[in-house]
Amino acid sequence: MDATAVQPTSRPGGRTARNRVAVRDATLAELAAHGYAGLTVEAVATRSGVHKTTVYRRWGGVDGLVVDALALADEDEWAPPDTGSFAADLRALAREVMTTFADSPASAAFVAAAFQSARAAAALHGFYAQRHRRAEVVVTRAVTRGEVPAGTDAGAVVKAAVAPFYYRVLIAGETPSEEVADQSAAAVAHAAQAGLYA
Amino acid sequence: MDATAVQPTSRPGGRTARNRVAVRDATLAELAAHGYAGLTVEAVATRSGVHKTTVYRRWGGVDGLVVDALALADEDEWAPPDTGSFAADLRALAREVMTTFADSPASAAFVAAAFQSARAAAALHGFYAQRHRRAEVVVTRAVTRGEVPAGTDAGAVVKAAVAPFYYRVLIAGETPSEEVADQSAAAVAHAAQAGLYA
Repeated sequence: MDATAVQPTSRPGGRTARNRVAVRDATLAELAAHGYAGLTVEAVATRSGVHKTTVYRRWGGVDGLVVDALALADEDEWAPPDTGSFAADLRALAREVMTTFADSPASAAFVAAAFQSARAAAALHGFYAQRHRRAEVVVTRAVTRGEVPAGTDAGAVVKAAVAPFYYRVLIAGETPSEEVADQSAAAVAHAAQAGLYA
Repeated sequence: MDATAVQPTSRPGGRTARNRVAVRDATLAELAAHGYAGLTVEAVATRSGVHKTTVYRRWGGVDGLVVDALALADEDEWAPPDTGSFAADLRALAREVMTTFADSPASAAFVAAAFQSARAAAALHGFYAQRHRRAEVVVTRAVTRGEVPAGTDAGAVVKAAVAPFYYRVLIAGETPSEEVADQSAAAVAHAAQAGLYA
């Protein structure tokens, strides 16, 4: 589910496409090292090897760098786990979100950016909306299998399963744990099966 | 549950206590207007009527202003709703968190501050830890009444009930709704009663 989990896209194309990936990688590295408050076009230019004037011209500024990193992440092939059962799918999803966020030091910086830039906020919200839409198949498959009542709000289920992880890490300052991911997924699966998200 | 919901404390004491409240009120107003990134000691001094050198000496800087606003919030008398039933208590709690956050334009700024200052982060996490501890009585009362199994993780229940609100507003960029608060509380109550947070 995470913006920083995307592998560098290898696409045909020339220097423009290569520069875009180099700038994205440099943006992620700088966000990981210094956070959004410490992100500068100069440092991204130096790290990426793309000339500073090119970065300014194409990306505009630090908010443009964040927006484009999220746009590139949107282009990946991410799909949620497909284990064959609803509860196991939801558990695997919650674990994946936790692991990806923890393994990607830039993750929290994208959330921080949204507080400081309306453009970054719109990009972050758009990125998560797309992730949620993709993850909803976990619920629609469960409906098809008869595990969950028809009419279940798939988006609400997906968000409820991952929300405790974000809340605990970003608001409560806790260290993420697989136990919490599993507990959250199991509770939401149980409630969804009982029709409480219908 | 919210940092900004606290009423100004009226305490005996002289100018120091009055200044502290005036500076806290000015900090909340400045956070609401300009966010943490736009918070300045100068603006807080002007708005509070407390001399700038006094603010610098006692609060140190913008992170100190945030830390003290949260410390004052910690001193309030907040207790979670007590309706007589577990599901209704959890629903009232989720609604209150939503309403308080929505009515307090500085709320999101406290979260933003935590991304930019380790001191503000520690204060935010401490504030929420204390709120969670107070809210846990909703679960312990339910255990006493036999509505929820003994051994239920009260903190996990409280956090799971409010997490979707924060996730939807801060990460997904959605507008909060009472429907979501109610749905989240009902689902968590159902799962807790089934022993899924034990």
